[in-house]
Amino acid sequence: MYTPEYLKNFVAIIFEKMGCPVADANIIADVFIAAELRGLPSHGMLRLKDYFLLWKANRINVKPNIQIVHETPSTAVVDGDNAIGMVAAARSMQIAIEKANQVGTGWVATRHSNHYGIAGYYAMMALQHNMIGISVTNANPLVAPTFSVQRMLGTNPLAVAIPAGKYRPFVADFSSTPISRGKLAVMEKKGLQVDYGYVQDKDGNPSTDPSILSKGGSMLTLGGDYEHGGHKGYCLAATIDIFSSVLSGANFGPFVPPSVAYLPVLEKKVGEGTGHFFGAMRIDAFQPAEKFKAKMDEWIETFKNAKSVPGKPSVIIPGEPEFDNEERIKKEGISLVPAIANDVKEIADYFKVPFEIH
Amino acid sequence: MYTPEYLKNFVAIIFEKMGCPVADANIIADVFIAAELRGLPSHGMLRLKDYFLLWKANRINVKPNIQIVHETPSTAVVDGDNAIGMVAAARSMQIAIEKANQVGTGWVATRHSNHYGIAGYYAMMALQHNMIGISVTNANPLVAPTFSVQRMLGTNPLAVAIPAGKYRPFVADFSSTPISRGKLAVMEKKGLQVDYGYVQDKDGNPSTDPSILSKGGSMLTLGGDYEHGGHKGYCLAATIDIFSSVLSGANFGPFVPPSVAYLPVLEKKVGEGTGHFFGAMRIDAFQPAEKFKAKMDEWIETFKNAKSVPGKPSVIIPGEPEFDNEERIKKEGISLVPAIANDVKEIADYFKVPFEIH
Repeated sequence: MYTPEYLKNFVAIIFEKMGCPVADANIIADVFIAAELRGLPSHGMLRLKDYFLLWKANRINVKPNIQIVHETPSTAVVDGDNAIGMVAAARSMQIAIEKANQVGTGWVATRHSNHYGIAGYYAMMALQHNMIGISVTNANPLVAPTFSVQRMLGTNPLAVAIPAGKYRPFVADFSSTPISRGKLAVMEKKGLQVDYGYVQDKDGNPSTDPSILSKGGSMLTLGGDYEHGGHKGYCLAATIDIFSSVLSGANFGPFVPPSVAYLPVLEKKVGEGTGHFFGAMRIDAFQPAEKFKAKMDEWIETFKNAKSVPGKPSVIIPGEPEFDNEERIKKEGISLVPAIANDVKEIADYFKVPFEIH
Repeated sequence: MYTPEYLKNFVAIIFEKMGCPVADANIIADVFIAAELRGLPSHGMLRLKDYFLLWKANRINVKPNIQIVHETPSTAVVDGDNAIGMVAAARSMQIAIEKANQVGTGWVATRHSNHYGIAGYYAMMALQHNMIGISVTNANPLVAPTFSVQRMLGTNPLAVAIPAGKYRPFVADFSSTPISRGKLAVMEKKGLQVDYGYVQDKDGNPSTDPSILSKGGSMLTLGGDYEHGGHKGYCLAATIDIFSSVLSGANFGPFVPPSVAYLPVLEKKVGEGTGHFFGAMRIDAFQPAEKFKAKMDEWIETFKNAKSVPGKPSVIIPGEPEFDNEERIKKEGISLVPAIANDVKEIADYFKVPFEIH
């Protein structure tokens, strides 16, 4: 078990060693540890190696000149200059928040960025400002649109964070696929089959094989097949892709660059890097903040008290499980499986930074 | 078969007879006919009777004083004064567009409204202004959140309209449930069972009975059960509900008023009427409009050319089927099934307005 402070400090040092300014390294480390604390290890320490290898391959810019290239009172387009995703994303969300302070809402489309970790982190940046935060990103293609066998879309997540009063905030943070790629990998490692509705083989036949992605298969959109509303998940994923890419000038759909160094740089470019889109809405641009929060408390209570299916848990307020994880993991510590701890140790050794394996 | 002009003129006269100002009656008629033309008859002439009966029961206001009750440069809260939904919604979207003209984007939360017809209509109002349009609404509760047996949410749709260049616009317009309530009703009339994943019985057991809603059952969210990502559909539906209600001051979730007169007015109110939320984003607040549209054309071409599953249609661009319907139905005319034509005739007779049945 590691304390969050130990790991955060360690990750920050690693990114400083790669050449990141201290402030940037601290943001990256904060997003990594937030993922671990929220119980989303697939976006935590596991990704350190991906970024390390991208850095070694000279495929990311650790000293980016992140700039607003166009703006109006409520909008901006940010060029991330091939920054590490967390750095470009946090800067962009900060701009959205500043614009919301000025004119009620702020909307920022970001291009030339990279994998930004957990979408919810940036949406949640709005909460302390009494704002609603929104964060979406495109991602390298794994998902077939309805009726296709081709991987055209990422698992494009949508995160929305909404402040409440006495309750913890409402934080929805979900991919536009039935399950995450990480869960597929877990099922594969356990030698289990998955349900129908998650993946298809290279010819578009329904499949239960969690390793089908390595055999030319693809993931389905939220809803699964057409009959079960998969085209609605495709609409959501496509909208997120367009907001992230066409509005910002980033690559769209199948041209989003890989977030891992073992995949080659794509030959065709239709924009710059990976794209994100962020929104911040001041609550008091609509309702007095205290009134809004009291009403959110009422919303949360109403849903928490809805009658459950016998044998099932009570209705979950989006964000609750992650806040519970955070409380628990802060007490218990963060555990790393040996494979990840060993990868991290190798990186530590490379930079001659101490890292304890336990 | 009816020409769109004939039906539109007829619907406008009916709403004028109810007391609506001419301009309002024309908007309402336009939304009704747009639904028919787009091939969504569940939101077209079928609904005339619902509005007629609400009017007879004195449950809607045909001469509303629709007002902005709070605003910032990029936001407004609109009180619909219990208007017919189409009237409050079109006015609200117009305000969003005006704000986008001023500061890049406009965001309007609307309360004290009623059923507004097809969500896509308002999103598409933005297109002619070279803007992206967004429209969501809450609706009377039919849908159970994940793990619950209680109907807490409407089929809450999300519509997003994005301009393109030589191609028709991208228009996603989808409910946050696997299928619409209208399709359930069709299956019921045909005596067919539905697939698993759409509905559950009153105890939360999976069901294939399309009439289960009349037996205490409920619809599931997009994704279906928890194992298939239904909690993500719940996140989407809940976010739409909160944007429509808590931001605007409308009723949320289970307290959204019924859109039909045969259901009683709810005893408990937590806000005013039904709520909507609208957004308009000027394209050139992000990218030069022509550049954006050319890039959208490239996006559309890329997706249209994605390889299909053998035997399946090619990849559909959101909005295409509805534009195709519109072209076809404009030529062929609008057909009304006898039951609906007879309902319409009764209303015509009530107001002594001529209506041909054919």
